[in-house]
Amino acid sequence: MKTAISPTRAENFPEWYQQVVAEADLAVNSPVRGCMIIRPNGYGIWERIQKLLNDRIMETGHENLYFPLFIPLSFFSKEAEHVEGFAKEMAVVTHHRLKMIDGELKPDPDAKLAEPLVVRPTSETIIGHHFRESVKSWRDLPLLWNQWANVVRWEMRTRLFLRTAEFLWQEGHTAHATAEEARAETMKMLGVYVDLCDNVLAMPTISGEKPAHERFPGAESTFSFEAMMQDGKALQAGTAHYLGTHFSKAQDIKYQNKEGGLDYCHTTSWGVTTRLIGGMIMTHGDDDGMRIPPRVAPRHVVILPIQRGAPEDEAVLAYCESLAAELRGQAYAGEPVRVFVDRKDERAVDKRWAWIKKGAPIICEIGGRDVASGNISFYRRDKLREGEKLAMNSLPCAQFIAGMSGLLAEVQAQLFADAKKRLDANIVKDVDSFDALKAYFAGKAGENEDSFRGWLLVPWKRPEGEAGETLLETLKQLKLTTRNVPFGQEGKPGKPCIFTGEPADEMVLIARSY
Amino acid sequence: MKTAISPTRAENFPEWYQQVVAEADLAVNSPVRGCMIIRPNGYGIWERIQKLLNDRIMETGHENLYFPLFIPLSFFSKEAEHVEGFAKEMAVVTHHRLKMIDGELKPDPDAKLAEPLVVRPTSETIIGHHFRESVKSWRDLPLLWNQWANVVRWEMRTRLFLRTAEFLWQEGHTAHATAEEARAETMKMLGVYVDLCDNVLAMPTISGEKPAHERFPGAESTFSFEAMMQDGKALQAGTAHYLGTHFSKAQDIKYQNKEGGLDYCHTTSWGVTTRLIGGMIMTHGDDDGMRIPPRVAPRHVVILPIQRGAPEDEAVLAYCESLAAELRGQAYAGEPVRVFVDRKDERAVDKRWAWIKKGAPIICEIGGRDVASGNISFYRRDKLREGEKLAMNSLPCAQFIAGMSGLLAEVQAQLFADAKKRLDANIVKDVDSFDALKAYFAGKAGENEDSFRGWLLVPWKRPEGEAGETLLETLKQLKLTTRNVPFGQEGKPGKPCIFTGEPADEMVLIARSY
Repeated sequence: MKTAISPTRAENFPEWYQQVVAEADLAVNSPVRGCMIIRPNGYGIWERIQKLLNDRIMETGHENLYFPLFIPLSFFSKEAEHVEGFAKEMAVVTHHRLKMIDGELKPDPDAKLAEPLVVRPTSETIIGHHFRESVKSWRDLPLLWNQWANVVRWEMRTRLFLRTAEFLWQEGHTAHATAEEARAETMKMLGVYVDLCDNVLAMPTISGEKPAHERFPGAESTFSFEAMMQDGKALQAGTAHYLGTHFSKAQDIKYQNKEGGLDYCHTTSWGVTTRLIGGMIMTHGDDDGMRIPPRVAPRHVVILPIQRGAPEDEAVLAYCESLAAELRGQAYAGEPVRVFVDRKDERAVDKRWAWIKKGAPIICEIGGRDVASGNISFYRRDKLREGEKLAMNSLPCAQFIAGMSGLLAEVQAQLFADAKKRLDANIVKDVDSFDALKAYFAGKAGENEDSFRGWLLVPWKRPEGEAGETLLETLKQLKLTTRNVPFGQEGKPGKPCIFTGEPADEMVLIARSY
Repeated sequence: MKTAISPTRAENFPEWYQQVVAEADLAVNSPVRGCMIIRPNGYGIWERIQKLLNDRIMETGHENLYFPLFIPLSFFSKEAEHVEGFAKEMAVVTHHRLKMIDGELKPDPDAKLAEPLVVRPTSETIIGHHFRESVKSWRDLPLLWNQWANVVRWEMRTRLFLRTAEFLWQEGHTAHATAEEARAETMKMLGVYVDLCDNVLAMPTISGEKPAHERFPGAESTFSFEAMMQDGKALQAGTAHYLGTHFSKAQDIKYQNKEGGLDYCHTTSWGVTTRLIGGMIMTHGDDDGMRIPPRVAPRHVVILPIQRGAPEDEAVLAYCESLAAELRGQAYAGEPVRVFVDRKDERAVDKRWAWIKKGAPIICEIGGRDVASGNISFYRRDKLREGEKLAMNSLPCAQFIAGMSGLLAEVQAQLFADAKKRLDANIVKDVDSFDALKAYFAGKAGENEDSFRGWLLVPWKRPEGEAGETLLETLKQLKLTTRNVPFGQEGKPGKPCIFTGEPADEMVLIARSY
């Protein structure tokens, strides 16, 4: 079968991914190593994510602030564990002026900063500093802050959206009087993210706690929600951290309690990034390109007027614009339906395929015959093909318009259902030995190394210290990682740990991952 | 008279400004030199500006993209004039890793970048690079791009919002086939800005072209819109540039024209920044603090329940919440009225003054008596006092709710009218000699140097080259600057240039400025 994207997912998933990003015009590599240019189609998705997540962050009582891009180097020295985790990959500003030296533009040696500045990889340290300035007594707590920003982590191997040196994100930072409140906040925001993934991105996830060796540097507990990509690999879609008093102690963030004594604040942080767009591509994309869930689609309905250089062309255009206006009068998920009439001077078939690859949920083609018949011909991007052919739908115009809200809801639900089915069907729970684990990921005869592998949920005795490091190394050699210990486990599994044979503490997810 | 802000505007305007920023809790200095922390009350204003300006930018056919924070040093070498204008104030990244050396965290000498990266001071060069990648033929034009981002310009003397090393802005960049189209685009976006200033920020401006010596580095023409602060100084609220083919030639941005030949694109750029918030403070603030125009106020109506530790407290709270719910059902400027019930455990009088200083347009105080009477007592922030006393208004509840939309429109209009009156009354047009100019700015006997001075609109013969530099120097010694040559001048003034005595080309605005 001829597909719009080549190679297909089955042929070469990583290359398929790059092709979808390019053909859907979501982002391109920039001349700056590891930094991307996010194109309008990709940025439009991010704007939708921003709006819908921001609404949820505000509804849960948080405030938006903006903190400096630069963090003084000394701030990183205060939190030893934190700097250890980040020091390897930060952009460092050392000069504040350029100068023409021997005909070449260079950093001016006379403009060397007394203290280098780090481009924020995350803002715990600088926000912690402002926590200290802002908290005096228990009356000032909790502080529930959020910021939308760019951050930089110097990455050796980058991939558009999934791992870039600069990325966009939202980072929440909160300070509380007690551990209980801070833990409850962490769980609440994890819930907000899971809701966003389920109901907006149509990307089901498994949430749970990260094992100790995969905690955020300086965190007491790290929680993640993991999505299954179409190659079976896990993508950590985001994290929420209960930081305990680690940062408070390093930065002296104290408050006067009701009894007049001084206590350290308990802090949290939580974030999601433009990586979510990468996750959506690998969750929803197919061999014809991107499929954008309607909730985050910059354009719900794209209308393609078929122009033949004939006198009827004008009538077709007018019909398209009037259809667009009527559709815009409809609401989907509480907002007007987003409609675009693509009047670009190109062949209709080329425009059709461009929008299929870009993933618009509904694509209409309207020519003279359609105007005459009063029927609307359209493709649903979630159900594009019947066999090898494109599945064209047709509805009387009034019915098409009146049903748009329901149709978009159906597309959204279908994308979620497909992804949920894949996730549920591919978490294997009956692997009960390390050999069986190895055999599972080795695959069957004839399968190559990149073939689809799901996730394993296996019993383990939670490793401590060195045992954890050793286990991590063992898994690494198999190109595997622990993802998280999913929530909702009632009691211990009553099985032996597949790594040590001792009674297991809990079930842990093991998977290949991004 | 006892005012909430001390000193008053008349006593010490710069210090008054700092106090308003602090007391209205809009922003604070950060530990990073020249970088600010924007607090929720300030960031909320910026979010409103972003939304309302972004809507206008989209309505005029632009697309949002995101470009990298870092620009390779070599990009600046290409455009000589541009680099000359910016090279003195840029943050330069030279290393990508920190390392513990002799117990101290330092930039790792082994992680020195082969080519330093500049933190964007503006993005013409990197966006120009992507123009070149994106343009093949005339069919691809115009490219109408916008980005919301942070930028960094190393400033020696910084002031919150007005001049900070890092600031937030929107930068539009467009590429066109012809000079006419690019010039029209520049004018269109200038019009969008002026509309934003008039109708959203309630901050009237004078627009016109900047004299040659004040053009953006690399621009063919720069246009500005200037607002008058309450100390008479001019604030450049934003700019739009027609860049001609300067950047296209430096970066080789060409397109195939309809005849098959290759032409350079004509480009534009235009931007406004968080400085607008500084402008609003100095336009609308009074001796009791900030006054936020309703269109950008994070909270239109703040309700303060008066709690007396009495049994009626619960009923008062319930009444306040129900009032808030009813007000939220009202619309102002196409959006629900934004209402906040301040339940903080503080004295009502302290909360009243906190919200007066923060500039909420409408402040209600509700106690047991108000619940009983069914009347709402409220302050209008735009008409806070009658004489020295606070002017409390009272309306039957139903009337207060039903009239909210109109009331907010009235506050918005009043703030604009006040500012417009000040602007119109303080542009002096009859100064016809350099001596008279000096005398005007020297002021009357008894006035100190900082006393209010308006602007002069004086005839000049547009200076070229060295003459411009000389004039600039002369004005600089008087702490004066040329602002712009206002639009709408019909023909030459028919008067002699006040600097040279030769026949004048046009009228130019001269003012003290920020």
